[in-house]
Amino acid sequence: MSVRQMKFGLFLMGVGHHIAAWRHPDVRPEWCEDFTFFRRIAEIAEQGKLDMLFVSDGLAIEPLSHPAEIVRLEPFTLLAALAAVTNRIGLAGTASTTYNEPFHIARKFSSLDHISRGRAAWNIVTSYYEEEAYNFSQTAHLEHRLRYERAREFVDVVNGLWESWDEEALIRDQSSGIYFHAEKWRPLNHHGTHFSVRGPLNSSRPPQGKPVLIQAGSSQDGIRFAAHVAEVVFTAQSTLTDAQRFYQTVKQEAARAGRNPDHILIMPGVAPYIGRTEQEAREQYEQLQELIVPEVGLAFLSDYLGGIDFSGYSLDDPLPDDIPETNGNQSRRQLIIDLARRERLTIRQLYQRIAGARGHFTIIGTPEQVADQLEYWFLQGAADGFNLMFPYYPNGLQSFVEHVIPILQKRGLFRRNYEGTTLRDHLGLPVPKSIRV
Amino acid sequence: MSVRQMKFGLFLMGVGHHIAAWRHPDVRPEWCEDFTFFRRIAEIAEQGKLDMLFVSDGLAIEPLSHPAEIVRLEPFTLLAALAAVTNRIGLAGTASTTYNEPFHIARKFSSLDHISRGRAAWNIVTSYYEEEAYNFSQTAHLEHRLRYERAREFVDVVNGLWESWDEEALIRDQSSGIYFHAEKWRPLNHHGTHFSVRGPLNSSRPPQGKPVLIQAGSSQDGIRFAAHVAEVVFTAQSTLTDAQRFYQTVKQEAARAGRNPDHILIMPGVAPYIGRTEQEAREQYEQLQELIVPEVGLAFLSDYLGGIDFSGYSLDDPLPDDIPETNGNQSRRQLIIDLARRERLTIRQLYQRIAGARGHFTIIGTPEQVADQLEYWFLQGAADGFNLMFPYYPNGLQSFVEHVIPILQKRGLFRRNYEGTTLRDHLGLPVPKSIRV
Repeated sequence: MSVRQMKFGLFLMGVGHHIAAWRHPDVRPEWCEDFTFFRRIAEIAEQGKLDMLFVSDGLAIEPLSHPAEIVRLEPFTLLAALAAVTNRIGLAGTASTTYNEPFHIARKFSSLDHISRGRAAWNIVTSYYEEEAYNFSQTAHLEHRLRYERAREFVDVVNGLWESWDEEALIRDQSSGIYFHAEKWRPLNHHGTHFSVRGPLNSSRPPQGKPVLIQAGSSQDGIRFAAHVAEVVFTAQSTLTDAQRFYQTVKQEAARAGRNPDHILIMPGVAPYIGRTEQEAREQYEQLQELIVPEVGLAFLSDYLGGIDFSGYSLDDPLPDDIPETNGNQSRRQLIIDLARRERLTIRQLYQRIAGARGHFTIIGTPEQVADQLEYWFLQGAADGFNLMFPYYPNGLQSFVEHVIPILQKRGLFRRNYEGTTLRDHLGLPVPKSIRV
Repeated sequence: MSVRQMKFGLFLMGVGHHIAAWRHPDVRPEWCEDFTFFRRIAEIAEQGKLDMLFVSDGLAIEPLSHPAEIVRLEPFTLLAALAAVTNRIGLAGTASTTYNEPFHIARKFSSLDHISRGRAAWNIVTSYYEEEAYNFSQTAHLEHRLRYERAREFVDVVNGLWESWDEEALIRDQSSGIYFHAEKWRPLNHHGTHFSVRGPLNSSRPPQGKPVLIQAGSSQDGIRFAAHVAEVVFTAQSTLTDAQRFYQTVKQEAARAGRNPDHILIMPGVAPYIGRTEQEAREQYEQLQELIVPEVGLAFLSDYLGGIDFSGYSLDDPLPDDIPETNGNQSRRQLIIDLARRERLTIRQLYQRIAGARGHFTIIGTPEQVADQLEYWFLQGAADGFNLMFPYYPNGLQSFVEHVIPILQKRGLFRRNYEGTTLRDHLGLPVPKSIRV
């Protein structure tokens, strides 16, 4: 029985996760659409033996959202390009079930899995911006519950399409001229509420059996959905207690759904600021916080809180009591409100805190201190690994790989080398059997 | 004024364009989903200074179609991966306007154009297989005329989305904290018959202004569409006279649509068999023809002719008179019927001819003979260049690059080096201005 070790995802979000990352003097803001930048990041991450790269996504822009969400490279094209210049690291991309067709998604992830020889993962999202609807001939965003209903059916169809071909279906016997066994080829013939899809997929069985499935919704619907289908869960948790509670809930829900809880990995986001001294790390943090443009921080906070209008308030006022409901990301909204109440933050303090790590676990300290904190969460039942959200690139990642990873390796908490070749190998997830029930 | 030179596209169709390519002893049939194979092909093509790689596509499989159309890599992922390992060659991918959303298509091609630094092209198709409908929750394929109507609107929307951002819109001024000029950002606010798309695109202006637009329909609707929007036209022409007529028609239609006819390049497909002697080339051809499995050739022919049932006929009978109408590819159907009548072919001879080059211009000979034929079509007003469809890979391509390209270079008919860095540079196509009317 091998020792349990941490898993790491690397969150590629433009030039950094911090909202002011693009203003940092070590950063060139145009890197956000520069493939050579992402290639460099991927190479460093692979040197560090990280499990996977992760690309978020959205299908619309907000005039005042995170700069990394204004213009950006599209996940399938970015990850496929990275597949060609890396060898081991996993490649996780976000795709919405609300504004896509299951055939396209099944096929692109299967193709990415073939190109990367088994390193693809799909982060399943249901989309939260109302604005996305307007780019897809819809007059309104699909209601929260219906989005999840559609997502469940969508994932069923995608799973079915990935099983279109048995492992031995394509025999390609050059002498007899038989290309495939028709009886090992399975149309899907799905007729559901949201989709009718005949299949089969025009892509053979993915090298991983199926790409790894990731989910990040922390609402009730989101957790139930994750418990049924996800193999990795990304989550924003700012305190150990909350993280432990979330961890317990998801593992229990998964067991209740008849799944092995070890096959659903919980990976909270973490924003590490690493310095040679704690003071240096703290200065790094403060430097970025001071670069936040007030209008941007405020608009950002407003957006996360469902469009609340702060014009009648001073930045030194506390957060108003009546925060409007939103059809967007429910769990994030609640996280922010809880944070403001708990620490009695002013509006200015709140937007600085939110814009900094946006509800994620923040660690500020030396490599030892960062390693200690990760170890603590990992051993205290709060995490199976972490989604690393460096404030700005490549420096944060470079420090982590050079200084934190070796400490974790010495403690036996992280691999010294990739044990296998696929993302399922790295994450210790089972390969689905080649038979559809 | 520079001398007019040929343009070359390289048609990547599995392990070769010939239907029996996968049975050739020099070929490994599983290469069709092996990225390292395509990488090798791309590298040879770039050594040959070819203009672009071209990937066809479809969104369903037929049990008895071309093996390269059963399982295959998806174009966006394949081309993005190739972008990362090549430097100059153009990357053209097929995407259907019938089973896609314009926002996704605009974005993925823009992203591919960014990743490749200006080498993306979109081959616009309207889809012809009835089966594609069943994978996208439709009960029937959209009728031919409506497909083109939708395609026109689709391309308008995509063009509009590519113009979402002025060249100087994203200033990203680190000192002031201003990321972009809101007045140089343009929502689209399109409300049409088939689509409502607000925009803007979450991708900045593509390096080429817009990716190159390619079209291949040779029906009346197809030609009219091409004349309005296409910058490159792929076409299947088996005789010089037909090719000249087609060339004239498209150029005239383009002029009538107010366009400069030099900005729409006609590139017929060509299947070259190259040998040290004509005899050797002929043997190469015969070897492949003999590898065609009769059932496959027949089913293939039937499919191209709209599902005609050959069970009542002998393979030595002539083609029956009453070929059913089809909602599929009209021009290809007519090409095949004309060929059978003109050369009085039996059913067997016809499927062998069709399966071999499928209505495309075939050249069998020495490097000199191949160069002569290409030059003749090029100078006789039948082509601005060619879409190279090698019967099997990599041998055909390797011979062409080593032996035919140098002859064309010596004659001044083809570049010795890439003059620029983008596909528009290679093709001599103008970069659209950064202003929307």
